[in-house]
Amino acid sequence: MKITETCLYADDLEKAESFYSGVMKFDLIQKEKQRHLFYRCENGMLLIFDPNSTLRESSDGSKNPVPRHGATGSGHIAFTVSPENYSNWKGRLQKQNIEIESEIKWPGGSESFYFRDPSGNSLEIIKGDMWDLN
Amino acid sequence: MKITETCLYADDLEKAESFYSGVMKFDLIQKEKQRHLFYRCENGMLLIFDPNSTLRESSDGSKNPVPRHGATGSGHIAFTVSPENYSNWKGRLQKQNIEIESEIKWPGGSESFYFRDPSGNSLEIIKGDMWDLN
Repeated sequence: MKITETCLYADDLEKAESFYSGVMKFDLIQKEKQRHLFYRCENGMLLIFDPNSTLRESSDGSKNPVPRHGATGSGHIAFTVSPENYSNWKGRLQKQNIEIESEIKWPGGSESFYFRDPSGNSLEIIKGDMWDLN
Repeated sequence: MKITETCLYADDLEKAESFYSGVMKFDLIQKEKQRHLFYRCENGMLLIFDPNSTLRESSDGSKNPVPRHGATGSGHIAFTVSPENYSNWKGRLQKQNIEIESEIKWPGGSESFYFRDPSGNSLEIIKGDMWDLN
């Protein structure tokens, strides 16, 4: 089975939208104010929820069939880009004043760098197929 | 760019391992006791971390280049299976006494069901390509 929805949580969805739409240039395909932003990333979905909304039952008292969920703290996800695009991505983020928090050369020859979204989630961009997934 | 690492958090990694290895039958490819379990799911990785470990600096005082992360609460991820395998998965989970918390028929004809991992993370299995990703 494939993972098709990966979630992060953000208590300020406007800032999250500025970042994921404006800086990352992901494709926003669905939005519900103060509840969620749904982005498409190639063959998967990145869902960003405000936990203050998804941890609550519907405000109108109706039973929402989607089970409650919501986390606080710093989540983590990693993206993979081709070796040719790795440096471009780093430059593009730095140009927009996104701090590169760390960069690691991994055993096996791959490398990756880390940065944060406005909610403090830890994002990583990996150069090439580190996990031999393809 | 592709999402290649999706994370969940669990403060009891032994229970998480029983569930993800024993019930879900995912392929465990790396394990560090009291820190993480790394599973491969087809073309992606599911990383399960104990936030009590990943929120801390290394216990030996050395600087870990991996930035701190870790969340508490219920995360959410969704998997996709082929329409032919959807009912099989539901039956297989029910046979192992995993409660199906909710099942939803979505506009557009897809459907999905929800259950929990031992840490309370909300997992969803979707029948077919709900998001038109392929």
